[in-house]
Amino acid sequence: MSHNTFGHLFRVTTWGESHGPALGCVVDGCPPGIRFTEAELQHWMDKRKPGQSRFVTQRREADLVKVLSGVMPQEDGSLITTGTPVSMLIENTDQRSKDYSEIAKRYRPGHADYTYDTKYGVRDYRGGGRSSARETAARVAAGGLARRVVPGMIVRAALVQIGTHKVNRDNWDWNEVDNNPFFCADPAMVPVWEEYLDSIRKAGSSIGAVIEVVADHVPAGLGAPVYAKLDQDIASNLMSINAVKGVEIGNGFDAACISGEENADEMRIGDNGQPVFLSNNAGGVLGGISTGQPVVARFAVKPTSSILNDRRSIDSDGNEVDVRTKGRHDPCVGIRAVPIGEAMVACTLADHYLRDRGQTGRLD
Amino acid sequence: MSHNTFGHLFRVTTWGESHGPALGCVVDGCPPGIRFTEAELQHWMDKRKPGQSRFVTQRREADLVKVLSGVMPQEDGSLITTGTPVSMLIENTDQRSKDYSEIAKRYRPGHADYTYDTKYGVRDYRGGGRSSARETAARVAAGGLARRVVPGMIVRAALVQIGTHKVNRDNWDWNEVDNNPFFCADPAMVPVWEEYLDSIRKAGSSIGAVIEVVADHVPAGLGAPVYAKLDQDIASNLMSINAVKGVEIGNGFDAACISGEENADEMRIGDNGQPVFLSNNAGGVLGGISTGQPVVARFAVKPTSSILNDRRSIDSDGNEVDVRTKGRHDPCVGIRAVPIGEAMVACTLADHYLRDRGQTGRLD
Amino acid sequence: MSHNTFGHLFRVTTWGESHGPALGCVVDGCPPGIRFTEAELQHWMDKRKPGQSRFVTQRREADLVKVLSGVMPQEDGSLITTGTPVSMLIENTDQRSKDYSEIAKRYRPGHADYTYDTKYGVRDYRGGGRSSARETAARVAAGGLARRVVPGMIVRAALVQIGTHKVNRDNWDWNEVDNNPFFCADPAMVPVWEEYLDSIRKAGSSIGAVIEVVADHVPAGLGAPVYAKLDQDIASNLMSINAVKGVEIGNGFDAACISGEENADEMRIGDNGQPVFLSNNAGGVLGGISTGQPVVARFAVKPTSSILNDRRSIDSDGNEVDVRTKGRHDPCVGIRAVPIGEAMVACTLADHYLRDRGQTGRLD
Amino acid sequence: MSHNTFGHLFRVTTWGESHGPALGCVVDGCPPGIRFTEAELQHWMDKRKPGQSRFVTQRREADLVKVLSGVMPQEDGSLITTGTPVSMLIENTDQRSKDYSEIAKRYRPGHADYTYDTKYGVRDYRGGGRSSARETAARVAAGGLARRVVPGMIVRAALVQIGTHKVNRDNWDWNEVDNNPFFCADPAMVPVWEEYLDSIRKAGSSIGAVIEVVADHVPAGLGAPVYAKLDQDIASNLMSINAVKGVEIGNGFDAACISGEENADEMRIGDNGQPVFLSNNAGGVLGGISTGQPVVARFAVKPTSSILNDRRSIDSDGNEVDVRTKGRHDPCVGIRAVPIGEAMVACTLADHYLRDRGQTGRLD
Repeated sequence: MSHNTFGHLFRVTTWGESHGPALGCVVDGCPPGIRFTEAELQHWMDKRKPGQSRFVTQRREADLVKVLSGVMPQEDGSLITTGTPVSMLIENTDQRSKDYSEIAKRYRPGHADYTYDTKYGVRDYRGGGRSSARETAARVAAGGLARRVVPGMIVRAALVQIGTHKVNRDNWDWNEVDNNPFFCADPAMVPVWEEYLDSIRKAGSSIGAVIEVVADHVPAGLGAPVYAKLDQDIASNLMSINAVKGVEIGNGFDAACISGEENADEMRIGDNGQPVFLSNNAGGVLGGISTGQPVVARFAVKPTSSILNDRRSIDSDGNEVDVRTKGRHDPCVGIRAVPIGEAMVACTLADHYLRDRGQTGRLD
Repeated sequence: MSHNTFGHLFRVTTWGESHGPALGCVVDGCPPGIRFTEAELQHWMDKRKPGQSRFVTQRREADLVKVLSGVMPQEDGSLITTGTPVSMLIENTDQRSKDYSEIAKRYRPGHADYTYDTKYGVRDYRGGGRSSARETAARVAAGGLARRVVPGMIVRAALVQIGTHKVNRDNWDWNEVDNNPFFCADPAMVPVWEEYLDSIRKAGSSIGAVIEVVADHVPAGLGAPVYAKLDQDIASNLMSINAVKGVEIGNGFDAACISGEENADEMRIGDNGQPVFLSNNAGGVLGGISTGQPVVARFAVKPTSSILNDRRSIDSDGNEVDVRTKGRHDPCVGIRAVPIGEAMVACTLADHYLRDRGQTGRLD
Repeated sequence: MSHNTFGHLFRVTTWGESHGPALGCVVDGCPPGIRFTEAELQHWMDKRKPGQSRFVTQRREADLVKVLSGVMPQEDGSLITTGTPVSMLIENTDQRSKDYSEIAKRYRPGHADYTYDTKYGVRDYRGGGRSSARETAARVAAGGLARRVVPGMIVRAALVQIGTHKVNRDNWDWNEVDNNPFFCADPAMVPVWEEYLDSIRKAGSSIGAVIEVVADHVPAGLGAPVYAKLDQDIASNLMSINAVKGVEIGNGFDAACISGEENADEMRIGDNGQPVFLSNNAGGVLGGISTGQPVVARFAVKPTSSILNDRRSIDSDGNEVDVRTKGRHDPCVGIRAVPIGEAMVACTLADHYLRDRGQTGRLD
Repeated sequence: MSHNTFGHLFRVTTWGESHGPALGCVVDGCPPGIRFTEAELQHWMDKRKPGQSRFVTQRREADLVKVLSGVMPQEDGSLITTGTPVSMLIENTDQRSKDYSEIAKRYRPGHADYTYDTKYGVRDYRGGGRSSARETAARVAAGGLARRVVPGMIVRAALVQIGTHKVNRDNWDWNEVDNNPFFCADPAMVPVWEEYLDSIRKAGSSIGAVIEVVADHVPAGLGAPVYAKLDQDIASNLMSINAVKGVEIGNGFDAACISGEENADEMRIGDNGQPVFLSNNAGGVLGGISTGQPVVARFAVKPTSSILNDRRSIDSDGNEVDVRTKGRHDPCVGIRAVPIGEAMVACTLADHYLRDRGQTGRLD
């Protein structure tokens, strides 16, 4: 079964490949009465758009979102959701016609060519098919709407690691994220990454990365103890992004290394009489339910397998072959994963916000 | 919404807390005609059972599984599934009556007490509620059935890290896993962990751990490119286990540190004329679909927050209090997570096996 | 796929057959803080219980419901839901041991024996399996809880037709329903049905029936325009009851026979300043969404195929045989369908109440 | 919650209103390797298209389907599914600009205006919104693909009743269905309906209808005993069509009137050694599972509430008003429901075919 829907009450279905006429999504279950603009969606789309620096793929796509249903246009040009499905469409414009005869049969190492053929017996060899990074444009569009669902919520992300080069958290400044081509919150790391990625790029190679997503002003109480844990659904949705190999919440794998005394976040009563946590190892989630602290998740993106150097492989006829990617080259796909991660976390939180409201009747 | 079901075609719903009369699960959608025994389920239950060494909780539970429906008893004592829901029940027998008045109001740091109260406005303070490790007994029972669904599949797990002490993979021997109280595949690490955990235990403290699950003989072709990726569903289901803070597939977070050349698993034609991969960084999954290689996942379990030392917290009346756990103490909950991880991966693979068969009609 | 769950936020999973040790259900997603008693559930169970008159099966079952999870017992003996899964169990006590060798192979006409064997290749021939009327006990238990979810809602049902004998609606009195063994709201019809069913019973035959379910005090606004229409989900859930062959909402099939002028319910402003409808052909649902009027549904139950007279059939070896049912006989299974219909409508409305609250944030 | 998806493995999500730029659907889970043509889809679309006779709405829409994803174009112009989501889009071309100020506030009796406003607090008053008959175009497109999923299956429908005028089944000839504007299989009834509907049309009134759908060559074994009964899912999906008020399977409500002897379909061994049923009261479904006989369902469509005569109503300000529809008029919406009913039954059967294959591994 191919399942291209995620979410239970805020439900997103995406469709499309890089080489058809368009791709898009349907957002079902969005609350009625939410006001937004196409320009606002475009703002998020533009963060993900290819070709914005020499460190990402040079494909040229306008990535313009059209909203086809589920809204009432207002006189000021804004849109108001009606509670019915919001269909959003993005055209593919930069489909270079080329000769696919060579790659149609060759299984690119690290790509899904071999597994697609094994499973489906047929494959759209003209691009990455559903595994293409273009599929994620639809997620970002849906995420733009999701951001409007939870009042006051802010979802931001930043690249925290390229190869073995990690940011220094003492330098962290969210305002820096949009000042460099890496979504880097540590300005001191920018020149390091720049030089490092230039070397990767010139070598025709690629490198992995780690992205951190932080959601602020998430109401306490979202999620469930098991099977619909907020952190589980965030992990699941981040893992649904192509090329992601690992996910962690709060201190994540570091939690394996420390004692219960160090790990458990202590509580006190704050100056405003409200509960405060003295640390946030939990990443804003305890027992699957949000604590009211920032929700913190990280995910690892593997280096793209499309590199300009020969790799050993086989073809669909069972011959041993060498494969190298030609054309556009993306030295660090992790960069563009930053706005995608934000979108997936925003969608997850919108969904859980509605689910909590449904079960408990609480209105935050 | 509380969602206590996972899986699409092989669907598992669990119910129950540590302090009610029983807990259990309903497995819906199991193929008909599968032969199994209660003894066989019990074998897996016994691996998870508490009280088997001084390194885990001393709660005493027989953890006997009763199969209440969905089977035809055979003359030899075995059971054959009929294709209708298989209900399995495990009684709670070791519920010590004690005075809960003190902890009923105090929020234990690192536990879900505060988030439960915030979300539900009511909480079963007599134990961990749904977040209790006892809930996982039902998962192991379901996993026992799931192992029978995919012909030839073998799912095994081992503890690979306690605190900062990691196994040496050169010593790896699956046969060692049942020879020590840690499910450790590296016999050289056993005495190190033993001494280390004794010190943790005597200090009334606790420590985290990392578990690795490996599924062999998984047919190629299970999963989907996005949103129902095999690795995503494995990650999601492992994250649904209480206390899990991170999940990775194949080389996981290490993929962030290496180049595309190093990461992409090359292919050749093997001696038997079949495709072979020259490495398994992918962990048996490419583009969300199984490659036929072993499926490899790891997850991090935080140290239990129930420790015998004072921690700062608040109570539900808004008072600042100190909290320490009394009674049973579990220095490393990660140990008992080993059979649970196996069960979750087995259920995920059984589900995807049926889903693939449904969509593609392939019969492996 | 066997799917034994219905509902999206108020989710009910049932399990069990007539010949296992027990049957039951898990209600997942129930709001926290709902107070109820086991005695109250038993009240509904007793309405469905077999053996209460000569017009229904003589199987003797106490049908005692045990609540195993998801509740906090209160000092006054009542229970409060905690928001986690509520597991309810009903033991099978009247399983007569008998020789099944004859019917194990013979396909009873009108029963699911042939289709079970065809689909599953294995069948529990000791009773109706999942198609047994006993499965519905679990629905009634779930319905008892569902009634508490929508504040003020009242769900009632009555038998309106046996064979061709229909009640006279001018005589309708809800208070009469519990005064006769037929759940009949027309006291003038009771002696007619009594005599008619006695003749059916003595002839070893059976007859069909029609049940009407009415839900009062349903808030306006529940449902959705398409695919999750309130009337669709009611129809679906009523059709899930065994032996049901048709469902209609409001004037149902009669709507085919009248003009738009006659059919569309006109509106005025009532004395209290609120909108009133001048008729209720719609059965309380317009465009899939509740109007605030009573929700009205009817369903037809076929005559049971277990009759004491010979019918032509085949066996699993391909022989032509004659089949007649021995033992207990149920001349009109439609009678006991009355409390089951109530339960299914109550569950559907509880589910939609939560779904509406989730999407719109309205609190009725 | 607005749920605009149906099906579990063959999953259809529709979106769009009559007054946006387009509407469409996403079919997820379609098996790979299915060959079809856009012309073939168009054949089914054209059956549903408005404006084909004076008896249906005069809206003019080309209803051209564009397939945007999930297929590989072949050299002969046909398409082959790749197993990924198939997105189909239909543009709205006949959106007359007019002054909506009058109807924006007035609740048309029998329409969903009042319930939409109550639920969502906002409403697209420019047409029927999601309840518009245009939404069904997307269903027909999906149904065209569904027909290709079950090998050999044929799904046909016919109008069997307009007002009180029912066809004579002795005259039934499937070949006649496309020879008249009513999808009528009884040629003798055509002139009767013609005259009757002309009188309705000239009076500015409308009338209801009943449609029968028959699926031939459905493999035995599809469905499940409860909650995913084949007949339940057919009923549910037919009830999801706007204006449908009742559904029945096989003899349906007539089953209430007859004895068990008359109702239960007897079996014999046919000349080919295969089981045969001597009648089909069951409508091809026993215990929720297909028997291999034709699957037969009927549904009742109410008269459209858009009539050219004054009806009493209220407006959103609480004023009592008179409402009459202006413009296009559709005297019997039941006519165009015929191809829609076919599509819904085809989709349901495709879904159950895949679900059965998933659970049981049977390949029909």
